[in-house]
This record gives sequence, structure tokens and C-alpha cells, in this order.
Amino acid sequence: MPPPREPLQARLDAITRLLERHRLLESLVERQSTAKRDLLEQMQRRENLVELQRHLRGIHPADLAGILASLPTEERLLVFRQLESRDAGLTLVELEPEIRETVIEGLSRDEIATAVRELDADDLAYLADALPADVYRNAAATLQAADRSWTVDPNTFPEDSVGRLMRRDVVALRADQPAGDALEALRQGGPLPDQTDRLFVVDARHLFRGSVLLQDLVRAQPATPLAALAIADAAAFVPSDAADRAMTAFERYDLLSAPVVDELGKLIGRITIDAVVDYQRSLADEHALARAGLRGAEDLFAPVVESVRNRWPWLAINLLTAFIASRVIGAFEETIAQVVALAALMPIVASIGGNTGNQTVALVVRALALDQLAESPRRLLRKELAVGAVNGAMWGAVVGLAAWLFYRELSLAGVMAAAVFLNLAVAALAGVLVPLGLRRFGRDPAQGASVVLTFVTDGMGFFLLLGLARLALT
Amino acid sequence: MPPPREPLQARLDAITRLLERHRLLESLVERQSTAKRDLLEQMQRRENLVELQRHLRGIHPADLAGILASLPTEERLLVFRQLESRDAGLTLVELEPEIRETVIEGLSRDEIATAVRELDADDLAYLADALPADVYRNAAATLQAADRSWTVDPNTFPEDSVGRLMRRDVVALRADQPAGDALEALRQGGPLPDQTDRLFVVDARHLFRGSVLLQDLVRAQPATPLAALAIADAAAFVPSDAADRAMTAFERYDLLSAPVVDELGKLIGRITIDAVVDYQRSLADEHALARAGLRGAEDLFAPVVESVRNRWPWLAINLLTAFIASRVIGAFEETIAQVVALAALMPIVASIGGNTGNQTVALVVRALALDQLAESPRRLLRKELAVGAVNGAMWGAVVGLAAWLFYRELSLAGVMAAAVFLNLAVAALAGVLVPLGLRRFGRDPAQGASVVLTFVTDGMGFFLLLGLARLALT
Repeated sequence: MPPPREPLQARLDAITRLLERHRLLESLVERQSTAKRDLLEQMQRRENLVELQRHLRGIHPADLAGILASLPTEERLLVFRQLESRDAGLTLVELEPEIRETVIEGLSRDEIATAVRELDADDLAYLADALPADVYRNAAATLQAADRSWTVDPNTFPEDSVGRLMRRDVVALRADQPAGDALEALRQGGPLPDQTDRLFVVDARHLFRGSVLLQDLVRAQPATPLAALAIADAAAFVPSDAADRAMTAFERYDLLSAPVVDELGKLIGRITIDAVVDYQRSLADEHALARAGLRGAEDLFAPVVESVRNRWPWLAINLLTAFIASRVIGAFEETIAQVVALAALMPIVASIGGNTGNQTVALVVRALALDQLAESPRRLLRKELAVGAVNGAMWGAVVGLAAWLFYRELSLAGVMAAAVFLNLAVAALAGVLVPLGLRRFGRDPAQGASVVLTFVTDGMGFFLLLGLARLALT
Repeated sequence: MPPPREPLQARLDAITRLLERHRLLESLVERQSTAKRDLLEQMQRRENLVELQRHLRGIHPADLAGILASLPTEERLLVFRQLESRDAGLTLVELEPEIRETVIEGLSRDEIATAVRELDADDLAYLADALPADVYRNAAATLQAADRSWTVDPNTFPEDSVGRLMRRDVVALRADQPAGDALEALRQGGPLPDQTDRLFVVDARHLFRGSVLLQDLVRAQPATPLAALAIADAAAFVPSDAADRAMTAFERYDLLSAPVVDELGKLIGRITIDAVVDYQRSLADEHALARAGLRGAEDLFAPVVESVRNRWPWLAINLLTAFIASRVIGAFEETIAQVVALAALMPIVASIGGNTGNQTVALVVRALALDQLAESPRRLLRKELAVGAVNGAMWGAVVGLAAWLFYRELSLAGVMAAAVFLNLAVAALAGVLVPLGLRRFGRDPAQGASVVLTFVTDGMGFFLLLGLARLALT
């Protein structure tokens, strides 16, 4: 049974074709007289939409979310309105936050209420932030009584904490129960929540005592008490723990789920690997955007004003550093006036410094992230300086030779070679010290290090070349 | 039962202290006469190592791998040799490839053989590449007969394929078996492999028929045949599928494991979420390094020559583009000689172009990765050009004003403003088209886009400013 690939792609094509027909129809309709228009519209539109609904049925909500994200806002809403209410709710859960926002803004209160009506408590809680307050309250109120106790507003937990990743759908069993009784009780009860690889064992006071893996439970002799099957979890969390800690533990110990307890040790929830994977992905995504200086993800079809607002702080910072570098050059205008070739050569010194420095930064940031810099950085610094010296000698010679070929002046070539050599030493130093310094001051080294480094290597590159030139050439 | 945090940190500290004592001891010993030295060494070293072994016992192999990575090579080997043989094998599995290499190089054949002796077939196959060929063959030969059939060399599958992620430890049950019998059979057999959330159902010809979740099996009535409990998996794979596909499916459908079948539809293995998470992490890591132009991860304590070799291709490419940009400036040396201020101002135009362009690149690369660019890029291009125009007007004015403040020349300020405006238009165009173009030609847009873009915005920035200046100012 080779996996079903084509169906999703075929449906996507069909949906795209329908939307194109819909657009064509709209533009046709606009050109007709009013009476005829109404009729045409009514007939064709309805037929079209029914076909669209047919194509959307049975697509996994995660895939539906992907389809919606790829559409401009009006068509996004058009497609969303054709979803069955259960799909609509789950699709809202799966959407990227900035896309979800446009959908919720475009829908009426009633439409939102219908969409979220069939969500369970965990999914509803997940959406709490995004929904209009009254819609959320109503939906929470209509949840079954048993469910309702779960709907703790996740905003009571700080961002990036385990509390935000936690689900409440734990199955807790008593430690003194025999395995056979436990199995019988499970058989009588409702289906187990998804992503259940282990059941949690508690004592009479609901204090957490360990986990029983399902795979151990099915193999247990009926008389064995659960306490004997329970394993000590490699990791247990309290809601205020950093989500990061959960991420590391899940990855290191290959966990599928882990218990969450309160300060007293009472079992209150669990974390499952899917939430951890999603969190990891969103974090990586956020970092990739932040590296390019974007404050957040942008809906590709967001209004221009919003985009400008998202992007300007970074540009302002970079412009500021560019001004400073420019003033370094400005201080040497006299030298440049005498040796104009310097103007053409100086970006080379700055650029090779920035590039080698950023290589060092990437390695240091990675080592910090993997906790490999337990030793003092002196050893690392010595090594990077050695690499910088070898690189500096090599690239200094190449650049010097090139300068000589361009300008046939030995002293200029020598100044270039020396400037490159020195700037690579600066780059090695800054490449190690900038990320370490950022971390020392509690900043994320992955984010700011590259700007600071480039600022240093640009400024120093200009300064070294022009300074040496002033000494040697004028 | 709050999670155990302190113990690991405490042990780490103890290990660090022991290693320091060891270093001190070595340097002391070197200064003694030979006879005394031998005695001292024998006594103190042995005591020290026993203590080290004690501290290392019971640390999770994933944590041991982290500790080894943070140590210089000699101490890394020293610590590794103190591990119990089972821990040593698992730690080898957990190590980053470049660290593993240094450890294997430093150990004798016998030491390696001892370390891998207790590994299971999957772990051994995972190490196949890294081990000396004869050590691997011997270890594979001593596996139990039942295990041995699994040890297919994973190198028979292409890199980044599902075959490389696959494990062979599947539990297959017959579709016509009643749930009660299946449970009884499981109870008689050995423990289930870890990361088992589902069992696979096959027919008489071992053709894959679906999965039974453990959580459904424990709740089933004993008489229900497994066929009735089986679900159709959201994803099934063949070994030649791209590992990427598995990654996307696991994330979208929140899978914990998925079946792998051969071309005939026979069940041959499974993928588990832990392998997918590791793969995702290694891919992200590789990308982060490649973005900075590193061909691979570097052991922080690798020899300098190796580091230079790892880093030079990127530096060569960047130097080449810097030379070209430099030649653009060189063509305008006459203009610069007349208006030296241009030399100081030109990096500003290049820099702001590069920064805005890279913001656009980050958004487009993200949209491509999330498959959100189903629509033609025309719409996106129009939007980015609009953002570029707004940004260009805004930052052009700022930069023009700054130029006027520095030099009090209106025409120079006007030229700067115009050059910034035009370069931001170039940046918007290139920011959309470069990643799309790279993808069209089958390259990874996340990797090369930034170099190409910066090359374009640098070159055009210099050209626009100096060209306009030649027209307007000289």
C-alpha cells in the first residue's frame, strides 16, 4: 500500500481552478446589468461553491491551514466558509498566528462561534488569545462539565513556559490497582486521548508516583499492581519551567510524553511530543525571521503599512551603524583624495572581515546552544586567532596580489595585505567575544551577534586600511 | 516529585574538578625524578580515575555525549575510557558526527570493539559509516542470529532518504487474529521495542494492512479481530522516499511512528518520531552553518588546518563578489576624486539595500518552505515593490538629510536620496526573484539567496550612487 500522495495534490489543483473560475465569474458579473447579474451570480456561484465544498471535505486540517495560508485574504475567507464546522475549528487551531488573525477578523461572531463549537477544551484554550472575549467565554461555557474544569486560560502561565505547552487530558491510575483491573477500567471508559504512550500513576492524595508505559501495561500479568510496573520518568515538569527545558529533555531522552505536576507534586497535566515539535518549529521560525531583522512573521498579503512597521526598527539600527562606519571613512577623506584607489579597495577589507567573523560567530553560537563551551573560552580564542592568522596570511597575499595587478603599486599592495591580515585578527577576536559577551549580558547570542560583529569588522576594516595608508602612502 | 535537576549539574562540576586535578597531577609528575614519578602516578591516577568512573555512572548517554563534546580531545578520550562498555556504545551513538570521529580515531580497535559489543542492530547499523570496516563486520557477526537479519547497511539507501531513518524493530500481527489472542501473544513474548505506540497488521503474505494503536488494543474486546481495530495510517513510506516528506508528515499529522513498506507493499520497518526530531535538528544545524559558509560542523578543538579547509570556499566566493563590487567603484575613480565625500557615503547605500533585501529574502524563503507561494509571485512582487517604495522614500529622506548635515551640499543630498530610493527598489526585486530563481534551478533558496542578493545590492548601490553623482555633480 504505497502512500496516498496524488489525491492531495489533485485536490489542490481542483481548488485552485475553482477559485480562478470564481474570480472570472466575479469580473464577468460586474460587467452585466443588475437584473441579469443577480441571476447569473446566484446560479453559478452556488454550483461553484458546492463543488468547492466537495473538494475540501476530508482534507486534514493541517493541510487545510496550508491551503488557506497560500491564498489572498478574500479567497482565504471564501474557502474557510465552505469548511464543515468541525474542520473549520481544527483548521483555526492549525493556522499560523498571523494568518489566523486575518481569518478571525474577516468572520462574523456567529461564524467564529460555529467554528469553535466542537473543539475540545485543550484546543479551545489554545485559541483563547485569538478569539473575541465573549465568543471564547460562550464556547467555554457550553463545554461539558467534565471538560470545563480543564479550560484554564493558558495566559495565566508566562510565555515560553511549560504551562503553555501543557494539556490537561491525563489518564491517572491508582498505584495500588492491579494491572488487570486497570485494563478493565480502561475498557469501560471512553477512548484514550491521542498521543497517549503512558498512563500516570498517582497515590490516594493524587500525588504523582510514576508512569506506566502502555506497552508494559499490555504485557503485564493481571495481578501485578501498577506500582510495580511504574517507571521513574526521565523528566517531570512544573508549569513554570521553561519550555526550553522540556524541549531539551524530549530530544535527549527520546520522550513521547511527560508528566506535569504542581508545587505539591500533584499530577495536573502532561506535555506531548507534538506540542514540543510545534514549539521547536515556531522557535526556529521566529529566530530565522529575527536574524533578518523582522519582528514577526508577515502574512504575504498583509497591507504595506503593516510590513513597513514590521521592518523598520532593524533598518534603523543598521543605518545607524552604517553612518558610524561612514564617519570613519569621512575622517580620512584627505588620504582618499590623494590615493583614490583606496575608495575602491576598502569594501574588500570590510567584507572579508565580516565573512570570516560570521563563520566564527556561527560556530560559537552553535557551541553555546549545545552547551559545549563549559571550558573557559581562552583555548577557543587561541585557536580562532590561529585560524585567523593563517587565513589572514593567505587571503592577505591574495588581496595584495590583486591590488598590485589592478594598480601596479607595491606599497598599496602591501598596505592592503596588512589591513586584511589585521582585520581577520579583529574578526577572530570579535567572533568569539561578541556572542560570549551577549550571553553574559543575558541577550540571545544567536540574534544580535551578527550585527555587532559586522559593525566591528566594517568599521575596523575601513580604519585599518585608511589608517595604514595615511602612514605609508601619503 | 519535582524533577531531578541538581544531580546532573553537581556531577558535571565534580567531573570538571577531577579533570583539573588530573591536569595538575600530570604537570607535577613531569617535574619529579623517574622512580618517584612512576609511583606517584600509579597511585594518584588510579584513585582519581576510580572517582571519575563513579561520577560518570548512571548519567544518560545523551548527557555523556554533551560532556565529551565540551572537552578537549585528550580529556575527551580519558573520560570516554572510564565509561562502562554499554554506556560507551550508546554514547558513541549519541555523539555529534565530528566529535565521534575524534573519539574513534583516538581509541584502539579493541576499545572500539568493546564499546560497540552490546549495541543492538539498529544502533550498530547507525554507526556503520563511522566504525573501522573490520570492527563493524565483527560486531555485526556476533549479533544474535535473529538480530543479524536487520543489520542491513543503511548506506544502501541514498542520503536524506526514509531508508536512513528506518528501524527494523517492527511488531507485526496477523489481521485475522482476535485482540485477546494478540494480547496473550505479546504477554508471552519479549518486551516491546521502545517508541512503540502502534502495532502493524499484516495479512498472510506479510502485506501491510494498517496499524492498531496500543491505546485501542488495550480497550478492545478480546474477540474483536485486529482488522476491525486497524486504522489507515495518515502516512506510510517506502525507503526511497525523501526524509523531508516523513518530516512534514510527522509534523502535520502529529504522528509518533509510521510504517515503511517495500515496493510490493510488504512491511519492512518503521520510522519513529525520535529519529524524525533528530533529523530535523541536524538539518537545521547544517543549514545554520551553511548560511555562515561552513561546510560542516567543526569540533571546537579541531586542528587549525582542518578549520581553514572547512572555511575557505565561502571566503573565496565572497572575495570574488567583493572584487567585482570593487571594480564597479574603480570605474568611477575620476568622480570620487572630484567629490571625495562619495567614498564615505557609498557604503550606506549598499548597506541599507542589503538589509532590506535580506528581509524580503527571509519572508520569501519562509513562504517557500511552508508552501505558501502557490499563487504566482506577481502579487507578492507588487507588494514588495510597494513596501520598497515606502521604505525608499522614508529612508531616502533620512539619508539625504544626514548627507546634507555632514556636507551642506543640496545636490549631493539629492543624489544620496535618489540612490537609496532606487537601490531599495532593486533590493525588493532581487529579494523576491533571487530565491524564486534559485528554486527554479533546483538550488536551496535558503542557502545561496543571501550571498547573491548582497552581491546585487552592493554592486547596484555603488553603481547607482556613483553613476548619479557623475551625471549630477561633475
